[in-house]
Amino acid sequence: MTHRSEISVETRGEGDLIDLTSEVTDFVRSTGITDGTCHIFVGGSTAAITTIEYEPGLLNDFPSMLEKLAPRELDYEHNKRWGDGNGFSHVRASIIGPDITVPIARGAVVLGTWQQPVLVECDNRTRRRVVYLTAMGE
Amino acid sequence: MTHRSEISVETRGEGDLIDLTSEVTDFVRSTGITDGTCHIFVGGSTAAITTIEYEPGLLNDFPSMLEKLAPRELDYEHNKRWGDGNGFSHVRASIIGPDITVPIARGAVVLGTWQQPVLVECDNRTRRRVVYLTAMGE
Amino acid sequence: MTHRSEISVETRGEGDLIDLTSEVTDFVRSTGITDGTCHIFVGGSTAAITTIEYEPGLLNDFPSMLEKLAPRELDYEHNKRWGDGNGFSHVRASIIGPDITVPIARGAVVLGTWQQPVLVECDNRTRRRVVYLTAMGE
Repeated sequence: MTHRSEISVETRGEGDLIDLTSEVTDFVRSTGITDGTCHIFVGGSTAAITTIEYEPGLLNDFPSMLEKLAPRELDYEHNKRWGDGNGFSHVRASIIGPDITVPIARGAVVLGTWQQPVLVECDNRTRRRVVYLTAMGE
Repeated sequence: MTHRSEISVETRGEGDLIDLTSEVTDFVRSTGITDGTCHIFVGGSTAAITTIEYEPGLLNDFPSMLEKLAPRELDYEHNKRWGDGNGFSHVRASIIGPDITVPIARGAVVLGTWQQPVLVECDNRTRRRVVYLTAMGE
Repeated sequence: MTHRSEISVETRGEGDLIDLTSEVTDFVRSTGITDGTCHIFVGGSTAAITTIEYEPGLLNDFPSMLEKLAPRELDYEHNKRWGDGNGFSHVRASIIGPDITVPIARGAVVLGTWQQPVLVECDNRTRRRVVYLTAMGE
């Protein structure tokens, strides 16, 4: 069985983390799949998907680490060519990656108690994102 | 065909890398799937899954890089709120990610000769981890 | 339905990014799958798979960020043991990860307009890489 769904998400730009738990949980339940996987993917090259404990401290700490890893104000070649100032966004998104997959067991998504699937907005402006969910299994 | 299995793993805390090769290989062989994928996922927000050459040098080098990326002793907001001192663990786990998927071809897992799937323990204490394996294919 | 394919790719060593879009797109179209996923995996522990906007600026910026994250000339334990000088390659590949999965919708791969699946060569010499594609769905 394969089931797909698309979620539209509004973000507030760099460092915004969007909790996708309820959307993913509801979608998987609606498919009737008891054992399998649910793939979570964001279209675009300046956002990423991972899991995190969704609490206010880490909503600051994770973007802070990304700022140290790839500072906003470096001289990116991307910025010189395109003038959009979001070279930092691209390299951050590429190292985190655009997708994760979560298991489905006994009819529900498997996640740790403090482990939430999130969209990580890396771009330097508000964006509308489409997140693609694909559940497969039996 | 969908087959699932759960592995319980004991870790020694920060920087412990657990080689999952034999568990994954044995599981995939037991499923009888000849072509498909095997998903490897860790529950929890302070551990991660990746592949690495499992040899003593890199078992030091990879944690050392993580310490530079997200030092243990920074002032994490997470630590101020929760007092568990593992803010570094969360941000490290989120950038590596909680899962990988490996191909199944001709009845066996596809991996490079020096490429082992590993659990990366990022927490600041020993943990018991559950790793979820899901093989799909035909 | 499960379909597999293997792509052979020649790389020029550290920092070479290989655009896999046409290979992935053509493969998925050939499978006839309308809804599902396509898994993209590189065998070996010194290369990685992610997505990026494939333009000349970022082809410099992404390797530059990796050099800051894990400098080539650090004293890696891996290098002391094995003498191949590619400790930096291993730790970079492990943090990016060896695979991504992309959705298949309405018979085609789902990607942002400026989002290309790429192989990231991290090794310090030219390599021949095998990339494993696995499409599943219906």
